[in-house]
Amino acid sequence: MQGNMMDVPLTVPFILERARTTYAGREVVSLLVAGRDEAGQPIAHRHSTTYGAVADRALRLGAGLLGLGLQPGDRVATLAVNSFRHLEAYLGVPSAGLVLHTVNIRLHPEQIAWILNHAEDRVLLIENVFGAMIPAIKAACPKLEHILVLGPTPAPIPLPGVADYDAFVMGQEPLARYPQIAETDAAAMCYTSGTTGNPKGVLYTHRSTVLHSLVSAPKDGLNVGEADTVMPIVPMFHVNAWGLPYTCAMYGAKQVFGGVFSDGRTLAGLLQNEGVTITAGVPTIWMGLLAELDRAKAEGEAYDLHALERLIVGGSAAPESLLRAFWNNHGLTMLHAWGMTETHPLGTASSVPAGVDANSDEGFALRAKQGRAVPLVWLDLLSEEGEKLPHDGKTMGRLIARGPWIANSYFKGEGQSNFFELDGNLWFDTGDIATLDARGYMHIQDRSKDLIKSGGEWISSVDLENAIMAHPAVAQCAVIAMEDPKWDERPLAVVVPRPGQSVSHEEIIAFISPKFAKFWLPDATITAESIPIGATGKFLKREMREQYKDFKPGS
Amino acid sequence: MQGNMMDVPLTVPFILERARTTYAGREVVSLLVAGRDEAGQPIAHRHSTTYGAVADRALRLGAGLLGLGLQPGDRVATLAVNSFRHLEAYLGVPSAGLVLHTVNIRLHPEQIAWILNHAEDRVLLIENVFGAMIPAIKAACPKLEHILVLGPTPAPIPLPGVADYDAFVMGQEPLARYPQIAETDAAAMCYTSGTTGNPKGVLYTHRSTVLHSLVSAPKDGLNVGEADTVMPIVPMFHVNAWGLPYTCAMYGAKQVFGGVFSDGRTLAGLLQNEGVTITAGVPTIWMGLLAELDRAKAEGEAYDLHALERLIVGGSAAPESLLRAFWNNHGLTMLHAWGMTETHPLGTASSVPAGVDANSDEGFALRAKQGRAVPLVWLDLLSEEGEKLPHDGKTMGRLIARGPWIANSYFKGEGQSNFFELDGNLWFDTGDIATLDARGYMHIQDRSKDLIKSGGEWISSVDLENAIMAHPAVAQCAVIAMEDPKWDERPLAVVVPRPGQSVSHEEIIAFISPKFAKFWLPDATITAESIPIGATGKFLKREMREQYKDFKPGS
Repeated sequence: MQGNMMDVPLTVPFILERARTTYAGREVVSLLVAGRDEAGQPIAHRHSTTYGAVADRALRLGAGLLGLGLQPGDRVATLAVNSFRHLEAYLGVPSAGLVLHTVNIRLHPEQIAWILNHAEDRVLLIENVFGAMIPAIKAACPKLEHILVLGPTPAPIPLPGVADYDAFVMGQEPLARYPQIAETDAAAMCYTSGTTGNPKGVLYTHRSTVLHSLVSAPKDGLNVGEADTVMPIVPMFHVNAWGLPYTCAMYGAKQVFGGVFSDGRTLAGLLQNEGVTITAGVPTIWMGLLAELDRAKAEGEAYDLHALERLIVGGSAAPESLLRAFWNNHGLTMLHAWGMTETHPLGTASSVPAGVDANSDEGFALRAKQGRAVPLVWLDLLSEEGEKLPHDGKTMGRLIARGPWIANSYFKGEGQSNFFELDGNLWFDTGDIATLDARGYMHIQDRSKDLIKSGGEWISSVDLENAIMAHPAVAQCAVIAMEDPKWDERPLAVVVPRPGQSVSHEEIIAFISPKFAKFWLPDATITAESIPIGATGKFLKREMREQYKDFKPGS
Repeated sequence: MQGNMMDVPLTVPFILERARTTYAGREVVSLLVAGRDEAGQPIAHRHSTTYGAVADRALRLGAGLLGLGLQPGDRVATLAVNSFRHLEAYLGVPSAGLVLHTVNIRLHPEQIAWILNHAEDRVLLIENVFGAMIPAIKAACPKLEHILVLGPTPAPIPLPGVADYDAFVMGQEPLARYPQIAETDAAAMCYTSGTTGNPKGVLYTHRSTVLHSLVSAPKDGLNVGEADTVMPIVPMFHVNAWGLPYTCAMYGAKQVFGGVFSDGRTLAGLLQNEGVTITAGVPTIWMGLLAELDRAKAEGEAYDLHALERLIVGGSAAPESLLRAFWNNHGLTMLHAWGMTETHPLGTASSVPAGVDANSDEGFALRAKQGRAVPLVWLDLLSEEGEKLPHDGKTMGRLIARGPWIANSYFKGEGQSNFFELDGNLWFDTGDIATLDARGYMHIQDRSKDLIKSGGEWISSVDLENAIMAHPAVAQCAVIAMEDPKWDERPLAVVVPRPGQSVSHEEIIAFISPKFAKFWLPDATITAESIPIGATGKFLKREMREQYKDFKPGS
């Protein structure tokens, strides 16, 4: 029997309207580039605006794009840093019935062009600092009709089809009426990082975007409310900055955008001066921030971060030692979240169960895991034979996911082997190897392709890395599989020591051996100057396996 | 263009599964009746169980109901107090594809029978304390096939079709598989209080129930998380206890149910001993609690309520003086929420905007309003001619609402005049007279039928009542319209003095006149021993207007 409830679709215009009215006066802060210093480094300029102004410009942007002849569902790409202009695109493009396609600026220009062509983007909003790419992009992407340049440009733009974004926006009247949008219509698009094969596109819907905002806000999620000041350091070109721009606009939190600046000193200054309460980023960002906070404290100029309630870490697993360092050195709480491009991304969020102190040993151990599924997301584990595995906190299995903001396919029907039916429902194979415990805590052990399979047993490279990174002389560590005639694969540790320090294989093994079965311990340790990192901040283990494939222990 | 997101319906089984797994160990506490004292008063017994056990029994209940031959969409009524058994019905009935119909136990037995017949309930779960009603209900409701009695019954149940709930539940195997449920299917049903005309049924959907839980949880909503202990004092037969049983189960908050006990002493004891962090009820409950807290403090036996973060008040407006008294006397924060049976009920929630101290004069003034629309709810104001009115915080208009958990109709198509189209969208006419300000703060001025229309101007009875109730000698006050030959209507104050005190019309007028235009001031004040209150705790103003219709000022 049908109920008596209104059929009101869940759409992005609702988020825009809420920002435009209820939170019109709430601030949006962006660091812009005011110029260059003598060394050619960008000089920061603090720009302040409001949700009311952002919403107004978002509606002008939407009207302008429709005025260019774009049709419902057409893609509008961005190559942009975190700023109020990018937020305008987040709100204005989907509210005009178009699809916001955020492209990763760290990709190789050829990859960017491939993605723009694959997505058939008709318009590109590009940050002025990347303006040098415009001619190449135009040459490589014949279907791209219009390019709008975000931020001041030093000279008039001479190329056909290229215009100044601000002038374009302010030359329009605000959209007078939202188009009809079904909640299953596409609102935004992201491509997977594609470390294997071509990148694949995922189209988020209006429904999934709104639900994701609702589920992100509660305290056991990301804990966003109007009184908060949120700085997403995770880029807005990366899985919608974990949805934070939408969640914050829906709940009225002040947003702080770092623009091109991501060094520890600038970030620490923003956290302090803007009164940031919640911030989110990948482990490498937090390592840089920690170093800066440690330095400042040691030099007697500690930052005042009393407003900062939580640092959210995702993208890859943060070692427990990092969580402990933030707490012990600075009284700051770091919490994991986990997700992927295909999960919008919020799949799990970290919180400790009632009755457990977050900063006890048990609390840290739980917080070193990725957390529990947020409401409406189901997680499960499968064996290599496709059988469901127990949720005992020990058994490793392939992590599968299901929920209203999890992909059921990729753009143009590619990669269908990642989606499959089980018990009559559709599931997504995350490609992660994980454990689940009875309370639902999920712990990523590895990407399935990075897992080390030794004598029929599974060894988690991530677990080993996190343990090794707790060693005081180690700055970074990646553990990869090396071929072994007897065991098929054996673990090899690649370690970057802290500046001026060194560490031997024997010291590493002595340090971690209390925590692991003997067969887990790496057969060798290589010292390196750096570890290759990809466009989304993750170790490029495939390259490393290639690089070290001729290495032999003892050689 | 369609997106790539999974089509996962939003249904109550998700809430049940989350309670059954993630929060299996979290506690559910109920006060049960252990017997009667010499005066015949019930003696409380603390019962403790877990979400895991509640979920297991909910699945057994669902299987048992289907075993009785119930078909998808069939209604299962409850006449029950707040307890773990009622929670089992909340979770188990909709998860079996049936509709949970909670009936107000404070209604007259004839009204109850009318509602059971109108809803065509096939099964009734009735609290043992109301067992005396069973023969009359059976006689009046021929379509009611089965009655299950909640809680221990003193003797074997002799009537045909009447069985013990616990025995029934534990005689079943848990439901092995959830039925196919569409998110627009009905999950629960409530009837309006029907102070005018017959009660009308509203069928909540699975979608609206899940969305309502998501939107209730964030900090600017009701602020529910796993670490919380929530005591809904609002009855579970009243608009789903404002959705709290579902919200708490979805987020793992411990729940505390007072059963038949609602006196200030018992409630204060529960708040203290269970470590309640969030509680919710109507103003009359809070007045009783305040009196008990004041008494205990004065007698040097103050309760320890340090865990208590917020008292949520709804159902009718709480005067600012009550908010201030809880803060000034006990350091407790009271926050308004507003809604109706037709709005599931959460329409607005009270929070102060960023930068305003909740306990400043500005904060109290804002918190005395009903708050701002929660995400996805739109509110607007219409004139008597149906024109939209400004949101200036002053202009009174008919409050209309729209959103995914707001009714589009009543059961069997009754009362269609409450729903209408505006600008191409469907809206619900709340029947409330309110103001809205630029930031979205909504302030109920009156029910439209209680508004006093004097010389073409509107006078808010609620505003006058709240101002008069701030007078130290006044316990309760209702302001009603009396007919006036010159002005059509004029306000009449009916006042219940505090015990041992008295107050004159002149004192009242002197007390409130600084706050109001002269024409707002009541023409007369009547002192009464009590004010008639209906089954949902609201003043019965229609009866009062009848009672005082021959009253003449000066008489």
